[in-house]
Amino acid sequence: MFEELVSKLKEHRTVGVYSHIRPDGDCIGAQVAACRWLEKNGIRAFAFNDDQIPLNLQWLTDFYTIEEPREETLKQCDAFLLLDGNSPTRFGSYAEYMEDDPKPSYMVDHHPDPQDGFDMTISVEEASSTCELIFHLFLQNDIKQLDSKSAKALYTGILTDTGSLQYDSVTPETMNIASELLRIGEFRPNVVAEKVFSNKRLNQLHLLSRAMSTIKLHEDNQIATMYVTSEMLEETDTTNDDCEGFVAYPLSVAGIKAAILFKDLGEGVKMSLRSKSNEVDVNKWAREIGGGGHKKASGAWHPGPLEETIKEVVGIGSKQLAEIDKS
Amino acid sequence: MFEELVSKLKEHRTVGVYSHIRPDGDCIGAQVAACRWLEKNGIRAFAFNDDQIPLNLQWLTDFYTIEEPREETLKQCDAFLLLDGNSPTRFGSYAEYMEDDPKPSYMVDHHPDPQDGFDMTISVEEASSTCELIFHLFLQNDIKQLDSKSAKALYTGILTDTGSLQYDSVTPETMNIASELLRIGEFRPNVVAEKVFSNKRLNQLHLLSRAMSTIKLHEDNQIATMYVTSEMLEETDTTNDDCEGFVAYPLSVAGIKAAILFKDLGEGVKMSLRSKSNEVDVNKWAREIGGGGHKKASGAWHPGPLEETIKEVVGIGSKQLAEIDKS
Repeated sequence: MFEELVSKLKEHRTVGVYSHIRPDGDCIGAQVAACRWLEKNGIRAFAFNDDQIPLNLQWLTDFYTIEEPREETLKQCDAFLLLDGNSPTRFGSYAEYMEDDPKPSYMVDHHPDPQDGFDMTISVEEASSTCELIFHLFLQNDIKQLDSKSAKALYTGILTDTGSLQYDSVTPETMNIASELLRIGEFRPNVVAEKVFSNKRLNQLHLLSRAMSTIKLHEDNQIATMYVTSEMLEETDTTNDDCEGFVAYPLSVAGIKAAILFKDLGEGVKMSLRSKSNEVDVNKWAREIGGGGHKKASGAWHPGPLEETIKEVVGIGSKQLAEIDKS
Repeated sequence: MFEELVSKLKEHRTVGVYSHIRPDGDCIGAQVAACRWLEKNGIRAFAFNDDQIPLNLQWLTDFYTIEEPREETLKQCDAFLLLDGNSPTRFGSYAEYMEDDPKPSYMVDHHPDPQDGFDMTISVEEASSTCELIFHLFLQNDIKQLDSKSAKALYTGILTDTGSLQYDSVTPETMNIASELLRIGEFRPNVVAEKVFSNKRLNQLHLLSRAMSTIKLHEDNQIATMYVTSEMLEETDTTNDDCEGFVAYPLSVAGIKAAILFKDLGEGVKMSLRSKSNEVDVNKWAREIGGGGHKKASGAWHPGPLEETIKEVVGIGSKQLAEIDKS
């Protein structure tokens, strides 16, 4: 499938490469490496994103500049490469722009349920990350075009989308690619890991400390909850973004089946639900209060207040657990 | 070097295999796999450790029973294999026993400064883990003897000794071995990672919460410290073992060069020092108060009290930082 993508891309002079909105390590890593690949093949590339690049990923923009899409630059593109999103709407303003001025669009992604709206779709749900797929773009064409910067960019996406190579999406092949990236890029994993993970503000750790003190177990220790309130953010001088990844802590409790992080930050309570049991489907769970997502990770909103929200949401999970016990 | 070890081991009928005191994932993983290797080669093996196996590693003892050394079983051994420790004293009562009744001893380890006292020493400081070395034992002899249980045991040690494959000790070769272990063992990384990392007691998270609230920055935000006291352990009903891995949190602060976890648990203050800068050598640092270890990870002890200890130890680091600035 990459053979076709390579030959299609080579038909163009200027390609706009998009990463998805609210960008993460995988889409940014893939975008930076893909742009460098295009340039090495004599194709001009623009890297677009509507949103800010998270602080811990900004070093990647030294490897390729990522800019807000503007009429003037968009017009210069004669095709678009859309990375790490399963629908045109995942790329923000791109969706609208494309309706007005359609141009060939190529999508590379590993999320489930790819939507229509692209001229070519490379959707590999089994891939650990979109960066793993972009490695194949290099492999297909000329692996010598993979330099140290592109290798580090691709490594970043594999690392961040697999929880440091720990998820069940990591195959022996993923590990081999990681090995190749270290070898070709001539770096050690800590170089990337420290930039991406060891880049916390002291305040964020103090917020995590406060949040972690709220972890409680419910329903015979099957459900773990944790919460963050606006007061905690105020007292530690942090923001909603600083809660990124917190849900992993209640989820790390031995023996539990699901964990929920509640964020009571004004305008109701947002929550992240995670399952670590094949039996518990947090997508179903979240849908009962108008949210949704995947079986193992979903999100929802509740008008509050916090205490009632926790009670109600734990109650929904408890019903699901009771049904499992019956079956 | 493994060729010689293989032929030496095959001269014996019964080998006692030791992991180091206060065992961790690397020594236990190496021990379990080495015992299985010996048995597959018709050599009887006893796995010995003076201490308790940590809760999150006990599943590995289903792959090979680890027992306290007793006169009766020790006598049956006609040689010893010592894993993941650089000196006979790292193996607790073994050191004494060997003085009374010396038998051939083979050591495999990756810590610096290997000490005398072994008949054969395989010390590879560059190896990510002793488990990476034991993989070569299988490779040297007959890789088909590596089954799923041994693969998971070796993977555990590589995972735990490299902070989830993130340290600078991880080479392309380490990643290839990880890949081979996944392929041969037919498992995905989450199977091991969840057992080792997502297996926390609620109390341990509450202790972490308390410890994290003590994180402070020193010397122009170059050194981060964290501490744990006996009161914290009492109040959260936890033990020293529950502090495993805590030092990663101060180390994750952006921009710092080194982090120290102080444990004030009676009988002075124990500490773990970590560096994330090539310039800061925490082995040197620890040696100034009689401790030691690696350049990036070391340990030491100070008579206390806590506040003075922190002041003195940060002071030593500050001198090292000043010397770097001068050079």
